[in-house]
Amino acid sequence: MTPGQEGAAPGQEALALLEQTRILVDPQLRAAVDSLPGSIRRVARYHFGWQQPDGTPSTGRAGKAIRPALVLAAARALGGDPRQAVRAAVAVELAHNFTLLHDDVIDEDRTRRHRPTAWAVFGVPDAIVAGDAMLALSQRLLSEDTGPTGARASARLSNCVIELCAGQQADCAFEDRGPEDVSLDECLAMATAKTGALLGCACALGALYAGAGERAVGAMDGFGREAGLAFQLIDDLIGIWGDPERTGKPVGADLAAHKKSLPVVAALSSGTPAAAELAALYRGSMSTSDEVRRAADAVDRAGGRDWAQMGAADRMARAVHHLARAVPDLARAGDLLTLAEFVTRRTH
Amino acid sequence: MTPGQEGAAPGQEALALLEQTRILVDPQLRAAVDSLPGSIRRVARYHFGWQQPDGTPSTGRAGKAIRPALVLAAARALGGDPRQAVRAAVAVELAHNFTLLHDDVIDEDRTRRHRPTAWAVFGVPDAIVAGDAMLALSQRLLSEDTGPTGARASARLSNCVIELCAGQQADCAFEDRGPEDVSLDECLAMATAKTGALLGCACALGALYAGAGERAVGAMDGFGREAGLAFQLIDDLIGIWGDPERTGKPVGADLAAHKKSLPVVAALSSGTPAAAELAALYRGSMSTSDEVRRAADAVDRAGGRDWAQMGAADRMARAVHHLARAVPDLARAGDLLTLAEFVTRRTH
Repeated sequence: MTPGQEGAAPGQEALALLEQTRILVDPQLRAAVDSLPGSIRRVARYHFGWQQPDGTPSTGRAGKAIRPALVLAAARALGGDPRQAVRAAVAVELAHNFTLLHDDVIDEDRTRRHRPTAWAVFGVPDAIVAGDAMLALSQRLLSEDTGPTGARASARLSNCVIELCAGQQADCAFEDRGPEDVSLDECLAMATAKTGALLGCACALGALYAGAGERAVGAMDGFGREAGLAFQLIDDLIGIWGDPERTGKPVGADLAAHKKSLPVVAALSSGTPAAAELAALYRGSMSTSDEVRRAADAVDRAGGRDWAQMGAADRMARAVHHLARAVPDLARAGDLLTLAEFVTRRTH
Repeated sequence: MTPGQEGAAPGQEALALLEQTRILVDPQLRAAVDSLPGSIRRVARYHFGWQQPDGTPSTGRAGKAIRPALVLAAARALGGDPRQAVRAAVAVELAHNFTLLHDDVIDEDRTRRHRPTAWAVFGVPDAIVAGDAMLALSQRLLSEDTGPTGARASARLSNCVIELCAGQQADCAFEDRGPEDVSLDECLAMATAKTGALLGCACALGALYAGAGERAVGAMDGFGREAGLAFQLIDDLIGIWGDPERTGKPVGADLAAHKKSLPVVAALSSGTPAAAELAALYRGSMSTSDEVRRAADAVDRAGGRDWAQMGAADRMARAVHHLARAVPDLARAGDLLTLAEFVTRRTH
């Protein structure tokens, strides 16, 4: 916990941490992006919400910076100076945004952060090469640190990116498969690769830049991964039962899109009559709000909602278990717990 | 020159060097690709020509391995042991193939190495993520070398990839512009970024792994860049006047595709009557073989053919000049010169 905030509500504490992260990380993130060749810089700056397509400044914000905040908080929890970990925080944020640029192309998503996606504005070729350049930039930052920490961080981030790719590939492949052809294990592996891996890498890189040994670094990776899976379970619940006023998406958006999210796959593989009902709805068009409501109800009755809620709590318990191995005095890990709570309790 | 080959013709010498490179590099290249997650490995192995889409082995060959051969030859020229540079050779070949995977998606090219491109077989999403993973893999290999050479090599490769991205972006942007709206300087800068940068990086990484100092490494980069530009000029000439029997493409394929290649842009910016004629043809459909023939003739009369031929010779002279700075006893750089000659004299 950051001094002076002991009395703040958890959400406020987390927001203060994210703001502190931005103050530390933003200048180096912007400097890194601005070092890209002009044509690519333009796409990257638009994607981050810093400028309009025509190059005029924009007041939009670049996401919540959860991953850089995890890097800095992990460094702090292990007795490191967060300022030493800013390079890693910037690299992780660039790698994250590389995946967003490419995922939007692959998923043909036209909106992100309430604005048209980069490919929708600049075209698919520009969005692909901007993502490629952002990935190379994240690697360049780490390799510019010529000490042994730079190499270890770089190897971890490279491995993480390969895992992210496998997760994205699996996610796409699931779309082409029938509602009962995706197992819960496959779905959990996909979510671990697509969401858990980068949160784990963020925490591990923070630990590396605090000078931690391989055991603590590995435990930090485990913390981030489990917290990431908890986050994904909550996110999937919000995708079905989230308040449209807060999510900005219609009720049951993920169901209408036939998304094989974790609660849905858990429900489908429950062997209950509700599972069969849900599978039938998923094989159809689900074009009416009544069908979407019936699907949400079927997920609930098949136990998918309870499973996801309990799963999220279980994953958070596992996350804390890993954290305790990395930071024996958990009082020093207050910021990490605040951030983990923030991402898993969010209702937005 | 490799011992025992003094009497061989230049082309045969180069082919022997490429074969030696394959023997050294292929096992580690295959091991690296096989370390990718299964779903991505499948796409990568297909792309390299090692297996069919269904996973059965294929006898196809993975390009000519020019870049890995340059890495090893540069290491040898600077007194290094080529075996120490195999890691760098594999990284460069992976980075090259990452660009091929993405460029084929971006350019919507359906054929490469006489086979359907990866995206045409597996779909755009799989080809994008396979390219991403291959780029991350190339970085992982270099960062697994935790010494200072690994970090320097990694930083150079990252910067090179950013330059490749800028080159690809420029190439795409040129397509949307009118025949007289692309300057020769822009076109040369694009070719330097898209072709010269990676050949330069290959030579620089070979020098790094021979333990060379920054001056020799930079000179090697210059050698590769200039040789790369010479190669591009020759390639562009072949794209217009190449023998269809040898190129496997119809006569004037690049003209029919309205490609703004270097000889074409040189001709367009010549201020001659032939330039105006060529611009008019480029603004039209160029759908008949007669129009294509007239366009080729106009490039010739506007001086584009001579300019490219002289430019290639000039670039090779500059390349050798750089090489002499890196390797004062040019006799030791025989392999590099053989390879440079091979890529710039090729008629295939």
